[in-house]
Amino acid sequence: MPEEFSISCPIPLKDYPIVTIGHGGGGGLTNDLITKMFEPAFRNPDMDTQSDGAVLDLEGFDRLAFSTDSHVVSPLFFPGGDIGKLSVCGTVNDLVMCGASPDYLSVGLVLEEGFSMESLWRIIQSMKLAASEIGCRIVTGDTKVVEKGKGDGIYINTSGIGRVAHSLVIGPSSIVGGDAIILSGDVGRHGMAVMSKREGLEFEAELESDCASLHGVVQSLLEGGVRIHCMRDLTRGGLATALAELSESSRLNLEIDERSVPVSEAVRGASEILGLDPLYVANEGRFVLIVPDEEVDLALTIMRDHEVSEAACRIGSAEASSESPLALATSGFGTKRVLARLSGEQLPRIC
Amino acid sequence: MPEEFSISCPIPLKDYPIVTIGHGGGGGLTNDLITKMFEPAFRNPDMDTQSDGAVLDLEGFDRLAFSTDSHVVSPLFFPGGDIGKLSVCGTVNDLVMCGASPDYLSVGLVLEEGFSMESLWRIIQSMKLAASEIGCRIVTGDTKVVEKGKGDGIYINTSGIGRVAHSLVIGPSSIVGGDAIILSGDVGRHGMAVMSKREGLEFEAELESDCASLHGVVQSLLEGGVRIHCMRDLTRGGLATALAELSESSRLNLEIDERSVPVSEAVRGASEILGLDPLYVANEGRFVLIVPDEEVDLALTIMRDHEVSEAACRIGSAEASSESPLALATSGFGTKRVLARLSGEQLPRIC
Repeated sequence: MPEEFSISCPIPLKDYPIVTIGHGGGGGLTNDLITKMFEPAFRNPDMDTQSDGAVLDLEGFDRLAFSTDSHVVSPLFFPGGDIGKLSVCGTVNDLVMCGASPDYLSVGLVLEEGFSMESLWRIIQSMKLAASEIGCRIVTGDTKVVEKGKGDGIYINTSGIGRVAHSLVIGPSSIVGGDAIILSGDVGRHGMAVMSKREGLEFEAELESDCASLHGVVQSLLEGGVRIHCMRDLTRGGLATALAELSESSRLNLEIDERSVPVSEAVRGASEILGLDPLYVANEGRFVLIVPDEEVDLALTIMRDHEVSEAACRIGSAEASSESPLALATSGFGTKRVLARLSGEQLPRIC
Repeated sequence: MPEEFSISCPIPLKDYPIVTIGHGGGGGLTNDLITKMFEPAFRNPDMDTQSDGAVLDLEGFDRLAFSTDSHVVSPLFFPGGDIGKLSVCGTVNDLVMCGASPDYLSVGLVLEEGFSMESLWRIIQSMKLAASEIGCRIVTGDTKVVEKGKGDGIYINTSGIGRVAHSLVIGPSSIVGGDAIILSGDVGRHGMAVMSKREGLEFEAELESDCASLHGVVQSLLEGGVRIHCMRDLTRGGLATALAELSESSRLNLEIDERSVPVSEAVRGASEILGLDPLYVANEGRFVLIVPDEEVDLALTIMRDHEVSEAACRIGSAEASSESPLALATSGFGTKRVLARLSGEQLPRIC
């Protein structure tokens, strides 16, 4: 291998000679890969590493959103969903968070030799159901098979294209001081459901993933004329990591009241037993919506009309920051804590 | 598992209770999965299972092409390329074969815990180089890490969007009897290069993959006014499988003279030793072009002006078929043989 590769690798090889599980955790190490290695290598005016999708201005076209997600969740079937539903909703939600309609999906399968044909069929049926409920079309695909022991049943990449039919600029750069932060429902269900299934844990209350499409509610918000400044779905790293990222990108403090964040009894109990913070646990059907303060009532009325966000509530505000911007949570005791990006991996293979 | 899943799985579970390596080979078994399982499940007017990309008519937009490919090649580095270059050129070529300009790519990485950071960096550099030479922009991405033993270093999905800026309908349905079949160069190099590297085989002559972008030459063909009826890049299953597929889709016989198909000395020698038919071996920078007979000279002149297709030649014709359409090859002895789809897998993990 030529010497210059070792010299110029932007991740210090003495600290990280190999890829670790944490590099896929969606926290600090993943961010290192993105900002130090991928972003400088692929830099171009249309690249967007601040969101989970890119909005493209094609000459002679309207705006299009483009997003990709590889799904490696384990186990493949979990309470409230499976890798098929997840892979459709995941990419659909990335498009929806860009303010786009989720029009077209591609599907790239990496199957492990020996994988059950019946399980594959169940997963495909689940993708079909999710896509048809959402109204998005799966238009192209690819299938590869790797030898036994070189995969884990099935990995699914979905990429998506959506149209941006409004003139809002939705993203961290549109957030301003005084904006309200709205959360669409209780947090931590997807992560805890997958974790409890994986570990064979039994809890008194049912733990079910929140895996769902956010297309319907966001469409209603847009049609209802809500001036959306930013949206972010809460996946790997949970609410806390999403707020930390948005705070960094917007250069504003994002302050929330932790007591206003809904957490179900089941998730709270499981989190305590496993020593996890629900604010950092993954979701697959929750998002934060950041809007001007005067739009809160309108937004909440619309959101509560959709099952997926019937428990929506305001949890905080964006505030101008004189120093380095932070995401901050006020606890039940009135103390403030900084919500840092998740570093490393809390729950591997969650999506 | 509910009984109805076993009953309704469209692949007979008694024959194929599990996924086999052959289901990823790009031949008959892959086709079974696509036509029996995926196509009926996801059916919609924009779906295209006959090509490696879908051309979309978005309301208020021009035509867009959309394609996806997961890359699982082993070894990751081979003579003439690596998984990074392959993953960019592979999806770019799928777009180009739809007659689209390769504008935007997404990158989805599935990394195995313990993968060398330096190798990742080499692969990213290779993707950067390929994308910048082609002039396509990598605009969005996703990174997942799976535990050691659940992957094989790195799998890369790339999906791509391209604009279709002309009014030709390029695809099997446009082929008519009398059309000429042009091949862009010698066949079998990618498959044999990967295979020889994987097996540690040494041959006297250098075996190097043909991995390359076809954007330049196809752009010249379009700009030169060649009335392209169909194009197909020759990947898994090689020239023979591509012709078998196009014959089925077009309902025409595709007849070639095997003696006119260029095969390098190195590929011919390696194929003989390994007992492989070069017509079935994978390529990553070769394509067939199907044009009206009177356009052959113009097309060949343009193609020979590009390094990637400097050995382009006419290899046969499309002919009306009264029975079931076939791809046929005339051998050196004047006998004709049917080129059937590759069934199962000849060379696994080739792309």
